[in-house]
Parts: sequence; structure tokens; C-alpha cells
Amino acid sequence: MVTTTKDRILEEAAKLFTEKGYEATSVQDLAEALGLSKAALYHHFRSKEEILYEVSLLALRGLVEAGERALKEPDPKRALLAFMQGHARFFEENYPFFVTMLQGIKSLSPERRAQTVALRDRHEDNLRRILRWGMEQGAFRKVDVALTGRAILSMLNWMIRWFRPGGPMRAGEVAGFYCDLILRGLEDGDS
Amino acid sequence: MVTTTKDRILEEAAKLFTEKGYEATSVQDLAEALGLSKAALYHHFRSKEEILYEVSLLALRGLVEAGERALKEPDPKRALLAFMQGHARFFEENYPFFVTMLQGIKSLSPERRAQTVALRDRHEDNLRRILRWGMEQGAFRKVDVALTGRAILSMLNWMIRWFRPGGPMRAGEVAGFYCDLILRGLEDGDS
Repeated sequence: MVTTTKDRILEEAAKLFTEKGYEATSVQDLAEALGLSKAALYHHFRSKEEILYEVSLLALRGLVEAGERALKEPDPKRALLAFMQGHARFFEENYPFFVTMLQGIKSLSPERRAQTVALRDRHEDNLRRILRWGMEQGAFRKVDVALTGRAILSMLNWMIRWFRPGGPMRAGEVAGFYCDLILRGLEDGDS
Repeated sequence: MVTTTKDRILEEAAKLFTEKGYEATSVQDLAEALGLSKAALYHHFRSKEEILYEVSLLALRGLVEAGERALKEPDPKRALLAFMQGHARFFEENYPFFVTMLQGIKSLSPERRAQTVALRDRHEDNLRRILRWGMEQGAFRKVDVALTGRAILSMLNWMIRWFRPGGPMRAGEVAGFYCDLILRGLEDGDS
């Protein structure tokens, strides 16, 4: 894979934003970390906020793709596991991009924020489709789809507060455990 | 109840830190919002960080108290519901204190951070006690206590990202729904 200067900038920016926070990172910090001049940086991106936006888009597009792969599973239970593990693994493998996106959305301009929120909603909607699919098939009991989806994404997203890649557990294992808890919680008590 | 100047400062600080962020709020901003001089403020607190610490302590002590009340319930299922609803209701009723604590811990000095982490761990440990109690009694199936506790606190704490007091749902209702999902997830499939 060819790594372009643009890719390198996004990667380094995601790392710095994760470590120091978006607001506390200056374009000068970023240029120094990359060994580039500020002028060279501005050749690729018009502003720090544009970099934040590109990082956030990459993270959200990766998440949406993982969710859409999960929808191709043959049954809703396997789809839910694939969705949750896909989300967690994407987070583990793209840690700085994911953290920057989750923490940075509030710093985007209103127009760009709307674009990222639309992608986030699409990801959440894919999860709701899996839940509805399971209810229609009788694999899950009938529950509030929005709140159940929220419970699932809360467990996965809160991992940014405690999970670090390279630690004793893999993100996919955590998601597998969470999914088992949810699947049992969605079992029909009457069946 | 008598409201002291100290209480007023903590309340206003929690509100400003929640709205603008801790780093972006200056002592000058706080003094202006309160109609006090900076000197008057420094009469009560030595630094902005001391105010953050006091706000965080109030939030954590309230949470720990709610958890300890839950431990007095007669059985583990009711204790889990009381723990989750107590946590969510405390968050709803003390929204700026709770948000400031969760977002501010990273800005505390190492010594003060250790104090707040100790309280947070005590709260988490109370939850684990309820889970172990339920397993010993056979009310819950045997699961990884640490990960289950984490799943529960993730759902509750992620509420800072989407729940706003005064909206269509009460925090206690959300926690009740989440608790039902978890209680069913912890039911023994064999019983």
C-alpha cells in the first residue's frame, strides 16, 4: 500500500489529537511531529478542523462498513455478534481515529458535524435493522429497538474510557462477552 | 437549606465546566458569572483545579451513597435495580456535577486523581458485590463479574452523551429498561 503524505498527516493528527486533545494540539505541533513545514501542511489541508473532519469521516466510514458486512450474515443472532465484534475490532485497529472521532465531533463546524452525525445515525440504524430482523423472526423478544441499540452502542463506545489496544484482552473478546449478555437478555422467556 | 458562597461557587463552576469545558473556563469567567471578584473566589479556593476536585468529590460521594443504599435491598435483583436507578437518578439530578466529574478526572493533579479514582473504584466494587451476591444465591448465572459490572456502568455513564434532564424520558426509566435487559441476560438458562 502506498502511503501518501495526506495519509501520514491524518495518521499523525489522529495520534496527537488522542494524546493531547484536539483543542490543545496546534498546527505547529502537527507540522513538527511530521517533520513538515506549516506551509506544506496547508498545501494538503486548509485548516486543523478539516483534518479533524477527514479523520472522523475515515473512522465513521469504517464503522458503517463493518456494520453493513454484519447485515449480510445469515441470521440475526450472528448478525448482532458480527456487528458488535466488527465495531470493537475496528476501534481496536484504528484506535486514534476512533477516539478522535468520538471526542472531536463537538469541535466540528455545524455543516461538517451534520455530515458526521448522518454517518453515525446510519451506523446506529444498521444496528436497529438487525434488532428488528431478530424480532420479526422471533429470535429476539419484542423490546424498544432504540433503547436496546443505545445500550449496545454505549457498552461498545465506553471502551474508549478503559480499553487499550495491546492489553490482556482483545476487543473482539469483550464484544463477544457483551453480545452474549445481550443475546440472553433478548431471549424470549416463554420459549 | 443554607446556601453558602462556597456552594454557589461549586454549582456555578460545575455548570460552566459542563458548558464550555474545564480547560476553556477561566477563573475570570467564573468570577464574572458569580458576580464576585477573583480575590473573593481565591478566598474560598486556592485554584481552579481545587474547585474541579471538590465538584468531582461531591459527584462521586453521591454516587457511592446511592450504591450503598442499593446494597441494603433484601435481594440481589432488587439491589441491582436500585443501584442502576440510583446511579441514573443521581446523574439526572446533579447533571453538571456528574458531567464535570466524568470529563474532568484527567485534568486533576496525580494525587487528587488517585483520590477520585479510589471513590470510583469503591462505587464499581459495590456493583460487583451485588453481582457476586446474586451468583452466590443462584439468582444470576455465573459470569465474569468485572466485565458484567463494566457493561452496566458503560450503559449508565454513556448517558452523558445523549441524555438531557428535562427531556421526554426520566433517567430512572432508562435505567429500569437497561436493568431488565441485564437481569434477563443474567438469568440461568437452565432454571
